[in-house]
Amino acid sequence: MSSSTQAQRIVLAARPQGEPTATDFRLETVQLPAPAAGQLLLKTLYLSLDPYMRGRMNDAKSYMPPVGLGQTMVGEVVAEVVESQLAGYAAGDLVLAHSGWVSHALSDGQGVRKIDPDTAPIETRLGVLGMPGFTAYAGLREIGKPRAGETVVVAAASGPVGSLVGQLAQRSGARAVGIAGGTRKCAYVKDVLGFDVVIDHHAEDFADQLATACPDGIDVYFENVGGPIWHAVFPLLNPFARVPVCGLVADYNGSAAVSDGLSVAGLMRGILSKSITVRGFINYDLDYCFGDFLKEVGPAIKQGEIEHLEDIVDGLENAPATFMGMLKGKNFGKVLVRVGERR
Amino acid sequence: MSSSTQAQRIVLAARPQGEPTATDFRLETVQLPAPAAGQLLLKTLYLSLDPYMRGRMNDAKSYMPPVGLGQTMVGEVVAEVVESQLAGYAAGDLVLAHSGWVSHALSDGQGVRKIDPDTAPIETRLGVLGMPGFTAYAGLREIGKPRAGETVVVAAASGPVGSLVGQLAQRSGARAVGIAGGTRKCAYVKDVLGFDVVIDHHAEDFADQLATACPDGIDVYFENVGGPIWHAVFPLLNPFARVPVCGLVADYNGSAAVSDGLSVAGLMRGILSKSITVRGFINYDLDYCFGDFLKEVGPAIKQGEIEHLEDIVDGLENAPATFMGMLKGKNFGKVLVRVGERR
Repeated sequence: MSSSTQAQRIVLAARPQGEPTATDFRLETVQLPAPAAGQLLLKTLYLSLDPYMRGRMNDAKSYMPPVGLGQTMVGEVVAEVVESQLAGYAAGDLVLAHSGWVSHALSDGQGVRKIDPDTAPIETRLGVLGMPGFTAYAGLREIGKPRAGETVVVAAASGPVGSLVGQLAQRSGARAVGIAGGTRKCAYVKDVLGFDVVIDHHAEDFADQLATACPDGIDVYFENVGGPIWHAVFPLLNPFARVPVCGLVADYNGSAAVSDGLSVAGLMRGILSKSITVRGFINYDLDYCFGDFLKEVGPAIKQGEIEHLEDIVDGLENAPATFMGMLKGKNFGKVLVRVGERR
Repeated sequence: MSSSTQAQRIVLAARPQGEPTATDFRLETVQLPAPAAGQLLLKTLYLSLDPYMRGRMNDAKSYMPPVGLGQTMVGEVVAEVVESQLAGYAAGDLVLAHSGWVSHALSDGQGVRKIDPDTAPIETRLGVLGMPGFTAYAGLREIGKPRAGETVVVAAASGPVGSLVGQLAQRSGARAVGIAGGTRKCAYVKDVLGFDVVIDHHAEDFADQLATACPDGIDVYFENVGGPIWHAVFPLLNPFARVPVCGLVADYNGSAAVSDGLSVAGLMRGILSKSITVRGFINYDLDYCFGDFLKEVGPAIKQGEIEHLEDIVDGLENAPATFMGMLKGKNFGKVLVRVGERR
């Protein structure tokens, strides 16, 4: 029955200097052998594209090793089991896996989790009910700890992390102030997601607008962008403010030229004088919360209490361009590549 | 019986630009009336000089309002009750009070606490068994959380905070790496306090020595100095490192010229990629630990298990010069001014 499978994959061709370009990626076609005993053949349905992947393209020490030159770009996927030689799995099963930017993959089951398509649409398992949603939930619950009446600020508010941060903050009784780029995203954040205030970071008087939107200061800043927005937020932080740091998109490309005068010394003085907590995390650090996340957020999504939006592009070959666009904020919602169709 | 008392006080004469100078202070003589009903007349025995006072001389937003021009410099003292018109106090009682840089003060009892001279020498209540010691204890217990086998680094290691940080870290089973300035202080830290390693921050190859002293990286950096030392420590921090920030002496004078390339963006990237916690605090934030502190550290001091050192200067008029010297690291141990003699 089983035979070899022609698979496509996208590898890191060169390490980007600053913004990635098309030549930093290469599409390859390879033959996968039939799955051996103990293996699964997975067919990718959806590939998740996420900002952290930019960091993995650098040859720098981080929480995870960098992607090697010539190696497949990393990433989480929703996949269908095409053939199973692994106990507990059958053809047709739907799973979450860390296959990377590929059309098909062989897996020994490590890091693979079955998903039930009846819980929620399968593509949400890579977004609001997946890693980005969990990042929002866990960072807010374990570090941000918003209380009723407090002000929570989040950037990339129309994105998969930010949109849930604001909605969960409001469910805690806090005010949600969102920052987004452009009229369309801002309208979505205010009108569809229902944030209390939204501010366009393209506005010339952005910092003034932010101060006006936070008359009682900022108690929680959920940091997922870095760059100039962080510099505008910092002076508005209240005593005992909490800053979960889960991403720094604006800084990933190394374009750290911010010239409004916040220095390391100034940052440390502010942290000291206002007893501020700044804590970096990745979702894995807080995975002890994952069960609670599914229990709390899953039903809320199914009942339509939590809004979410996916930005889906067709074809693995379009992943690099889509990824580069996402780093520039061109996406609108959680970015997914539809790589294959469910049988 | 009671009559007016001639008192001396030191007021803020001008706001310093950078390092304070003698003309920023003024010694005044005033007449205090006899204590009214509900008041105490206090005679200062010891005045504590602490780095945070530099911050209070600036007209800047902080956790406490700045000292006003012409107002008495703030500070904690050990005082003797000379005359009491307040229930619960009698002449001869010894107390802790926030009288500031004065020889005598009237008090309504707010913020005054009686001390028992048999617990420990009274001057330790301003040092190892007072605010600086408590800062070390609480910051380490609530934020630093050293575990056996971990590496804890602290600067100003011969000072009242740093010396206790290292000794308490060792009591938790961690390695204590101290940073101090000059041969004499370094010898004290290594030979008397018993830190595992001490490094002189005046050394040209200071950063290299620090890296060598921390072959397994740094798990806790107790930040009480700021400036170039922080820049040398930061790249050595381990994943999940904790950084309690209780002081930034090196930055208090505004001399923030550090040119070794750590930027705000670099700092935030490090915090993110290594899941680091940076948390500012002042001792008041953690005062719920104070009872435990006295219970744990008091007996250890009395039994000689914890080393401490006071640097005592005579005469209120010498407080400004002593304070300015302390900011430059000229003190050796907890800086106290002996203002008056116990009767």
